[in-house]
Amino acid sequence: MPRAKNILFIMCDQLRWDYLSCYGHPHLKTPNIDRLAQNGVRFTRAYVQSPVCGASRMSFYTGRYVQSHGASWNGFPLKVGEMTLGDYLRPLGMDCALVGKTHMEPDKEGMERLGIDPASIIGVRVAECGFDPYERDDGLHALGPDGRYDPRKPRYNEYLNDKGYAGDNPWHDWANAAEGEGNELASGWAMRHASKPARVQEEDSETPYMTQRAMDFMREHADRPWCLHLSYIKPHWPYIAPAPYNDMYGAKDVIPAVRSEGEKKDPHPVYREFMDYRVSKNFSRDEVREEVIPVYMGLIKQIDDQLGVLFKFMEERGLMQNTLIVFTSDHGDYLGDHWLGEKDLFHEPSVKVPLIVCDPSSKAGGTVCDELVESIDLIPTFLEAIGADPAQQSHRLEGRSLMPFLRGDHPASWRKFVISEYDYSVLPASEKLKLAPKEARLFMICDKRWKYMEAPGFRPMLFDMQGDPQEFNDLGADPAHEEQRARMKAALSAWALRQSQRTTRSEQQILQSRGKSTRKGILIGVWDEAELPDELWSGYLNDTPARNG
Amino acid sequence: MPRAKNILFIMCDQLRWDYLSCYGHPHLKTPNIDRLAQNGVRFTRAYVQSPVCGASRMSFYTGRYVQSHGASWNGFPLKVGEMTLGDYLRPLGMDCALVGKTHMEPDKEGMERLGIDPASIIGVRVAECGFDPYERDDGLHALGPDGRYDPRKPRYNEYLNDKGYAGDNPWHDWANAAEGEGNELASGWAMRHASKPARVQEEDSETPYMTQRAMDFMREHADRPWCLHLSYIKPHWPYIAPAPYNDMYGAKDVIPAVRSEGEKKDPHPVYREFMDYRVSKNFSRDEVREEVIPVYMGLIKQIDDQLGVLFKFMEERGLMQNTLIVFTSDHGDYLGDHWLGEKDLFHEPSVKVPLIVCDPSSKAGGTVCDELVESIDLIPTFLEAIGADPAQQSHRLEGRSLMPFLRGDHPASWRKFVISEYDYSVLPASEKLKLAPKEARLFMICDKRWKYMEAPGFRPMLFDMQGDPQEFNDLGADPAHEEQRARMKAALSAWALRQSQRTTRSEQQILQSRGKSTRKGILIGVWDEAELPDELWSGYLNDTPARNG
Repeated sequence: MPRAKNILFIMCDQLRWDYLSCYGHPHLKTPNIDRLAQNGVRFTRAYVQSPVCGASRMSFYTGRYVQSHGASWNGFPLKVGEMTLGDYLRPLGMDCALVGKTHMEPDKEGMERLGIDPASIIGVRVAECGFDPYERDDGLHALGPDGRYDPRKPRYNEYLNDKGYAGDNPWHDWANAAEGEGNELASGWAMRHASKPARVQEEDSETPYMTQRAMDFMREHADRPWCLHLSYIKPHWPYIAPAPYNDMYGAKDVIPAVRSEGEKKDPHPVYREFMDYRVSKNFSRDEVREEVIPVYMGLIKQIDDQLGVLFKFMEERGLMQNTLIVFTSDHGDYLGDHWLGEKDLFHEPSVKVPLIVCDPSSKAGGTVCDELVESIDLIPTFLEAIGADPAQQSHRLEGRSLMPFLRGDHPASWRKFVISEYDYSVLPASEKLKLAPKEARLFMICDKRWKYMEAPGFRPMLFDMQGDPQEFNDLGADPAHEEQRARMKAALSAWALRQSQRTTRSEQQILQSRGKSTRKGILIGVWDEAELPDELWSGYLNDTPARNG
Repeated sequence: MPRAKNILFIMCDQLRWDYLSCYGHPHLKTPNIDRLAQNGVRFTRAYVQSPVCGASRMSFYTGRYVQSHGASWNGFPLKVGEMTLGDYLRPLGMDCALVGKTHMEPDKEGMERLGIDPASIIGVRVAECGFDPYERDDGLHALGPDGRYDPRKPRYNEYLNDKGYAGDNPWHDWANAAEGEGNELASGWAMRHASKPARVQEEDSETPYMTQRAMDFMREHADRPWCLHLSYIKPHWPYIAPAPYNDMYGAKDVIPAVRSEGEKKDPHPVYREFMDYRVSKNFSRDEVREEVIPVYMGLIKQIDDQLGVLFKFMEERGLMQNTLIVFTSDHGDYLGDHWLGEKDLFHEPSVKVPLIVCDPSSKAGGTVCDELVESIDLIPTFLEAIGADPAQQSHRLEGRSLMPFLRGDHPASWRKFVISEYDYSVLPASEKLKLAPKEARLFMICDKRWKYMEAPGFRPMLFDMQGDPQEFNDLGADPAHEEQRARMKAALSAWALRQSQRTTRSEQQILQSRGKSTRKGILIGVWDEAELPDELWSGYLNDTPARNG
């Protein structure tokens, strides 16, 4: 059976699990992604470790829970020393490169403390989350009165300038803005302009640009095995698309919002604060959904079309036959469901993602896996796919390889719960709720039926996803569900007590060292020499030169 | 009020909290340590983060719980990137040096991954737990059929050779052995020899040697502020002392074992395994206690005498007036209490330590503090003592400064629980209990009355230290104490859910960044430009050159 030589790890940003035709969207057709699903395994219960870009991605890239790696929000640096995908793959002879977004913030203070030169190869990799940055672009080149959100100058801006799109920030002025009234730009940041065409030619917009860069990479790396993280910023906001994707869909294609009046009655205090955000209030208006969601769909359609281009390119080079391909997203988007915009909380539209894995060795092409899967499962999957044993890294990697599912097997045991976490310490909600940064935390644990959310300082939330698949009825304070809450809380506590930082000794090393210290002369609690074999005294009881010294 | 210029951080190894006269020992007189207590504050509820050398020490040196730093057993490397005492003190202009033991194992793999040269200054500090190793000696130069326990050659062995004590391992053959029968050495590893005098002259034994090295350091560092960790291996086993300390005490001085027949009836499965160890069985015999404990006392007496020498030296140089002095231990020793030897579990003789802190600014000289104190409180105390604000490091340091107690104040709020942890994955008990390395873990949480132990996979243990101060009655399965167990377990769970790895952003930084991203142009969920002040659009809506590009 052929083993994967390369890995193509495709990520979208803010793509909901249900906005693909293979996941059941009734109007949005994504034939290229669907074809990947037909050849691979489509996971229906794939959850991210945190419903926010930075924290979720750091879990994808480290294979560890957010509580373990600590980079719990956008821009919180991943602490130096945390191992990332590249650290696992490179010693196995595989290059690991990036085209697109990571949301990684380097731990400059830690690097300086350890004397790591940011300009060295190691320094660049530490700063770039373990990737060789073939083309890093976080896709958020925002600018305000306090300056740039991301101080790095993206190469994409130079590309646009070279193409004749003038100005300091063509990312915004052309790729993320439309023609406005009079002499004004219509910024993509104002959602009322969503359906207007971006000022950039489609071929120069971000998704085709990144796809081209991925193909450049593949051309240049024909010889060595590679893992390429192709990480699109879209369909993340600003919600604006170039023609023809700007008006490819219309209000009639928008699926109804999943929301109920009952959700607004005495909501959980944290949920209430998130419903109170501008983005939530705007997405609760039909006018907004009908303007924005068609463009969100157009951006996804564009990704699907570009993946068609990419897959054709790979097919022509024989790369489809020796490349493990993953397609996923870093989190979803409420789009007005549950009276919310953005992501942040743990309803399915936010915390569940599409996940398709297509391995050339697969015997399971076209199957669907309903088991509970986490984003931290990808690194162990990659390791097993290229012939390494992920169990050797189980002291660091907290997920499990999905390869059994790709082989068409079913493991004898599989996880019973998934975990997701959210740190809202920098958000206004934490201030309104008068929480110190350390207090503004949420934990979700769910099985196939029950979803429990622990909010330290507040009551929990609980949903019965079987009896209430739309997650309308919060049973977090319902006396009839005390037992379920206790069960979920106990499982969460057991998870929290795991040894996530014992990363310098493997399980195998520990098993091998059990009880071995006596053989190095540590003879604890012995009364009489006769209690131990003579051999163990060999360092001590010989008639040594010391005798007559 | 004078502020401490220097810090002298004295640690003994395996010294029980109650084997000092100031802590109430009826026969062992420790006037020099008592005098420190008379000038400082003596803490009666000081707990270590783990009742085993390596893990406990890594908590002392990092200011973090074992679950946070991950070096949960002897020889498990402290992962590169973890900040240590020296990392906190050096930027404040204070040198940080070591004389004696740390039990630190460097994370060589992590250092190599990050390109840290072990021979560089940074590399040495990373490898030596943040200390400049003025004299590192872990004091365990054991030798067996598989070689040396500690591959490093101690300078102390050279010292002994230079003094005429011959052989490859004079640490054992002279300092830790007595004259045996015929031509044999009587190794200190066999406890039946405990009361025989070690073959070394008292002045050349380990405790005076380390004391001399501390004085050498102080002589050489008269100018710069320093923190010196003077870390004695004694009264840790091998239990053997030079004359006159070998027979200074006798069987009549041995306080009775704290044990009851009831403890052997249906004990907790983990406790049962520890009772089954050789060291436990031997220490359960009166013959053994009467031979070993007097020597254990002699080793403590020697430390007290040496501290008398050291304090006199410091007095003569004015150092007692400008040095914060801490005296403590890394854990205790059962010595037969509860039918156990060694440490490992969470009864008071094992997990509680003496802690005396004497600050030159103190107004609280001679007071006793009964609050719950943890070993991780020392680094914050040091920071505050030299004028820094430990709150600035509260995203890393998990303890609290003890300075209020030293000033004679009482903080408005103080911790309600202490935590200690134990990883027994390398011990035979884990094998007998058929546990994988990840499963062999214990957690203790206690307040001033209740002590609860969580043993994943087994029932918990519970003691009422008020009604049962000798901890004889395990209430872990008693239906009448369900409520107490639930309360303690809930507190343990809350602790376990803390954000211990969010170490790259301080609480202050997070507070300052709350809601600030709009000012860098991240304008989420806006429908109409009018929803936000014009200023926030300043990066976008100007008539830029792009307009006509």
